[in-house]
Amino acid sequence: MSSNEISADPAGTGPFARPVADARHNEVVSPSSLVVHFPASEPLKLDCEQELAPFAVAYQTYGTLNAEKSNAILICHALTGDQHVHNRHPVTGKEGWWDTLVGPGKPVDTNRFFVICSNILGGCMGTTGPASFNPATRRPYGLDFPVITIADMVRAQVRLVDHLGIKQLFSVIGGSMGGMQVLEWAASYKDRLLTAIPIATAATHSAQNIAFHEVGRQAVMADPNWREGNYHAFATRPSAGLAVARMAAHITYLSEKALQDKFGRGLQDRTARSFSFDADFKIESYLRHQGSTFVDRFDANSYLYITRAMDYFDLEAAHGGKLANAFRGTTAQFCVVSFTSDWLYPTRDSKEIVKALNAVAANVSFVEIESDKGHDAFLLEEPEFFATIRGFVNAAAAKHGLAAPGELV
Amino acid sequence: MSSNEISADPAGTGPFARPVADARHNEVVSPSSLVVHFPASEPLKLDCEQELAPFAVAYQTYGTLNAEKSNAILICHALTGDQHVHNRHPVTGKEGWWDTLVGPGKPVDTNRFFVICSNILGGCMGTTGPASFNPATRRPYGLDFPVITIADMVRAQVRLVDHLGIKQLFSVIGGSMGGMQVLEWAASYKDRLLTAIPIATAATHSAQNIAFHEVGRQAVMADPNWREGNYHAFATRPSAGLAVARMAAHITYLSEKALQDKFGRGLQDRTARSFSFDADFKIESYLRHQGSTFVDRFDANSYLYITRAMDYFDLEAAHGGKLANAFRGTTAQFCVVSFTSDWLYPTRDSKEIVKALNAVAANVSFVEIESDKGHDAFLLEEPEFFATIRGFVNAAAAKHGLAAPGELV
Repeated sequence: MSSNEISADPAGTGPFARPVADARHNEVVSPSSLVVHFPASEPLKLDCEQELAPFAVAYQTYGTLNAEKSNAILICHALTGDQHVHNRHPVTGKEGWWDTLVGPGKPVDTNRFFVICSNILGGCMGTTGPASFNPATRRPYGLDFPVITIADMVRAQVRLVDHLGIKQLFSVIGGSMGGMQVLEWAASYKDRLLTAIPIATAATHSAQNIAFHEVGRQAVMADPNWREGNYHAFATRPSAGLAVARMAAHITYLSEKALQDKFGRGLQDRTARSFSFDADFKIESYLRHQGSTFVDRFDANSYLYITRAMDYFDLEAAHGGKLANAFRGTTAQFCVVSFTSDWLYPTRDSKEIVKALNAVAANVSFVEIESDKGHDAFLLEEPEFFATIRGFVNAAAAKHGLAAPGELV
Repeated sequence: MSSNEISADPAGTGPFARPVADARHNEVVSPSSLVVHFPASEPLKLDCEQELAPFAVAYQTYGTLNAEKSNAILICHALTGDQHVHNRHPVTGKEGWWDTLVGPGKPVDTNRFFVICSNILGGCMGTTGPASFNPATRRPYGLDFPVITIADMVRAQVRLVDHLGIKQLFSVIGGSMGGMQVLEWAASYKDRLLTAIPIATAATHSAQNIAFHEVGRQAVMADPNWREGNYHAFATRPSAGLAVARMAAHITYLSEKALQDKFGRGLQDRTARSFSFDADFKIESYLRHQGSTFVDRFDANSYLYITRAMDYFDLEAAHGGKLANAFRGTTAQFCVVSFTSDWLYPTRDSKEIVKALNAVAANVSFVEIESDKGHDAFLLEEPEFFATIRGFVNAAAAKHGLAAPGELV
């Protein structure tokens, strides 16, 4: 879109070992997305007090930015998500991860809105992360990549939005870790958004959630192929460890009832127990599949950095121990959404957000969606959820003079 | 107690590699407990249709068996428990794992009852398991050990009880996997017990619980030191993988609230985030400690076999798809106990057991204990739980003519 947007990172073709030059690795060095490169002269200041420079942000857009630049919606993705919200994924070939919610005629209607989604800082789909080329060492960052925070991720998004010349976003929307980014936007960039939709998220990561993340990290680090994060140089990948991490996490994304209803004690491709350690049960087979496919599309070090950023997220502590302080002075309109069977970010976490917003007399609506699907519900077919988002977005658009589909302003 | 009880397994001193000849390994080959050896002529018939022979059962006893042999209580231990209910542990040096419940004057009063606890089949504290000497190969079984079931564990216990000359147990008591054994006793050996106390358990292992176990097994198997189960021969142990398995499991033993109250987002030995992958948070430090201490006292293959046995447990399927059938004809008196914050074996699992017992007009009392402590509550200080067990045991003892403490019959 401008002169400093190129589709490949020339540094990525440099002399560092590129052991597994597959589709996934190509997305690190030469993403299929649009990319904005911020040069060394425009560093990103991080919470850890280091500066990252140069850095790149890879992103996708859908729909058309209007002349007033008033119809932009930023989608923030979750831990293992990426910018491919509403297009075929360049590595997996699958449909966009939020095709259910975003698209022409969908609740977030791309006939009407200009939708942006960028790969988060620390990710592995083109935005600078631990798999990216480190100009200082002329090899991938690995553990030389600075430990980042949700606020740092949002700083990178702000730079992208600035670059696109958008002064105020119509909305910032995200689920799970994406919701944390929404909250960070609302807290730190109050004049940059009209509405905020944090979904299935929390303002403060709980001890149990830190615990599950720590198990995942330890699984990766226990894999000898991790090699202290320097696996790129050894033509290896800690795939076994990363698969275990993914399996453990995956359990937390579904409700107990969803697992029971979907798999129960059903056997996989057999009629009786094998009396072995094969995947006798459907649930075992399913988890193994989740683990093995994940490692094909995700970088293990990115997994460490992103889970760490989530664990570090504590909007309450960052605002003097009082969550309401984070939102003081906000003029944005909030729609907070939770799901009844989500035990990773249960409704009480959303209620804390709502309470804090109420304490500063913010404009907030809160909806708890009845669902058996657990945390993953926000990614799945949930008509009540879709209706909630559609209703909120349309009403806010009307209020702010944005044309409804088929209307002229 | 009889001529075939010896304190060491001579086979254990054989020519197989004994790479880590530490206190734990000594308990496999030469347990500190009493051991009964069943010779090759008295095999144990297993559900997998193999026979195990010879085999040994290591056990502890507390209190005195009365002349009528009517005051015996069998305690069944959980996944990572063992026979050291009420004595200092030979490997860890810690107090017995159920010292809170069992001992002189305790709810299970050893002044009054003869308490037996045996290491389960497949364990690693002296009863035959995958770390034991396989006479066929003259090295540890490893994955040559047959895949066992809860019913097989109980078969080994029945052999021990027979060996002790006890026709009818006053009670069989156990929590978690111990509770599964209690249910199996009640279902398959109806004339061998007067009372049964299944605690924090289920008649059928859920999909979510299978899922967590599968993650643990995959963590062990992903460790290159596991070497297809043959690590004994390589002077290695899959400690990293086993530690990850333990960490994941440990989260499920505590309630979300217990984790939040005990650890919250508290930092460990620091005042600010380190911006590294150190154990910044107390919960991380705690989990790493749980993982690293566990591997000193437990055999990785035992972990695989025992979790598998739990996953296979399905008393309903074993009785024609109707749990009530399992208990038809029982004359035992049941006390079923659950804990409000246990999400591994939630109250609804206990209610299924109670419903099945009611359907066959069994004598059953059911108590749900209010507790924040999660699944581990059965091992911790829970006065209401202690009072429940004490009350049930004393009333049943009185009914069956067993002397109360200080009384003469």
